[in-house]
Amino acid sequence: MSSLPESIAGKTLAVLGGTGPQGRGLARRFAQAGFAVIIGGRNAMRSSEVADALSAEIGIGVAGTDNLTAATNGDIVLVVVPWEGHAELLTELKPALAGKIVVDCVNPLGFDKQGAYALPVEEGSATQQAAAILTDSTVVGAFHSVSAVVLEDPEITEVNTDVLVLGDDREATDTIQALADVIPGVRGVYGGRIRNAHQVEALTANLISINRRYKAHAGIRATDI
Amino acid sequence: MSSLPESIAGKTLAVLGGTGPQGRGLARRFAQAGFAVIIGGRNAMRSSEVADALSAEIGIGVAGTDNLTAATNGDIVLVVVPWEGHAELLTELKPALAGKIVVDCVNPLGFDKQGAYALPVEEGSATQQAAAILTDSTVVGAFHSVSAVVLEDPEITEVNTDVLVLGDDREATDTIQALADVIPGVRGVYGGRIRNAHQVEALTANLISINRRYKAHAGIRATDI
Repeated sequence: MSSLPESIAGKTLAVLGGTGPQGRGLARRFAQAGFAVIIGGRNAMRSSEVADALSAEIGIGVAGTDNLTAATNGDIVLVVVPWEGHAELLTELKPALAGKIVVDCVNPLGFDKQGAYALPVEEGSATQQAAAILTDSTVVGAFHSVSAVVLEDPEITEVNTDVLVLGDDREATDTIQALADVIPGVRGVYGGRIRNAHQVEALTANLISINRRYKAHAGIRATDI
Repeated sequence: MSSLPESIAGKTLAVLGGTGPQGRGLARRFAQAGFAVIIGGRNAMRSSEVADALSAEIGIGVAGTDNLTAATNGDIVLVVVPWEGHAELLTELKPALAGKIVVDCVNPLGFDKQGAYALPVEEGSATQQAAAILTDSTVVGAFHSVSAVVLEDPEITEVNTDVLVLGDDREATDTIQALADVIPGVRGVYGGRIRNAHQVEALTANLISINRRYKAHAGIRATDI
């Protein structure tokens, strides 16, 4: 990993909620990029099974454990849990996450027969909720709309999307942009302060509409940069 | 205009609030694509001056008048007014807009020294507000984040962005996608129902952040479609 920026080289990544498709997909791509990855989940046994299956498939060891152990052992922690348990889990893990960069990847969406829609969030967005709870961490929002199907597809070597990285701390957003860049095809792009996270989270609902209409796994690219 | 889809061929386009940079830029590009374009504004004299200046610059006649006259004479009406006067103007023009496709292009944004941010909108978004007022029109949201600087730059022949088109009426969204497609480089992409318009409007704040950081005039592209 000698070519990686110092901010991320040799770091251990924890993926909380890493047993779902999005978390598994990110874990896969980061493990393939050479990072030590720990999948966290509500149930350590289940996480361990998911990690073992992933490890066997990609031929690289990935650890699986409970969310607290993952949070404790990760240098950079990605939060990919369902929106329903978001506030509760982060409150519980607050001490374990102190001093770390926490990357919130959660999209607060509802679903009905017309598709997906953005849920109202009291704090404005999942990222802002995380920042309100994790006052001893540096919270960044990122990886909201990277297709889980694409991430988990071993045939897809280049993931054709930008990742908008939202945060109020320049060093942290630079770090997570660099982290996004390690996935082949992905480009980490600074997307604004966390007060502008809501629309990036909610845009995933539009991408779901696009996917339905065009039978695709759409991502987004910023042009002219 | 024989190669244009029937839904837009020969239509007159009204651009309400067309005296501002975004409206002027859209008027320019649609006039260049062969459409009859009427620029509307609060002040007919001012609109006429803007239209005359644009006509002289591009060598194509563009009309300028008050918003009511423009709304009355347009077959398809684009709303590019400041957010502050949005509800009031649409309420006033409701009878003139009846039976027409109204394309809301308005981004309800606030600005402070940290940049742009999304304003809360009671109806959810400018597009939804327009739909709530204009119950006799078919409201579509589109053209939210096409850079005015790019649209107005005569040196830029290809505008490198997708336009997300939001609406609940398939025929109307198809029509406005076709309209977006007439601007060289632009692709009209269905972006979901109007309940998902907020985040597309608000995303313009993120693009402003991107523009600041990268010294660019960013647009967005959906990938994999």
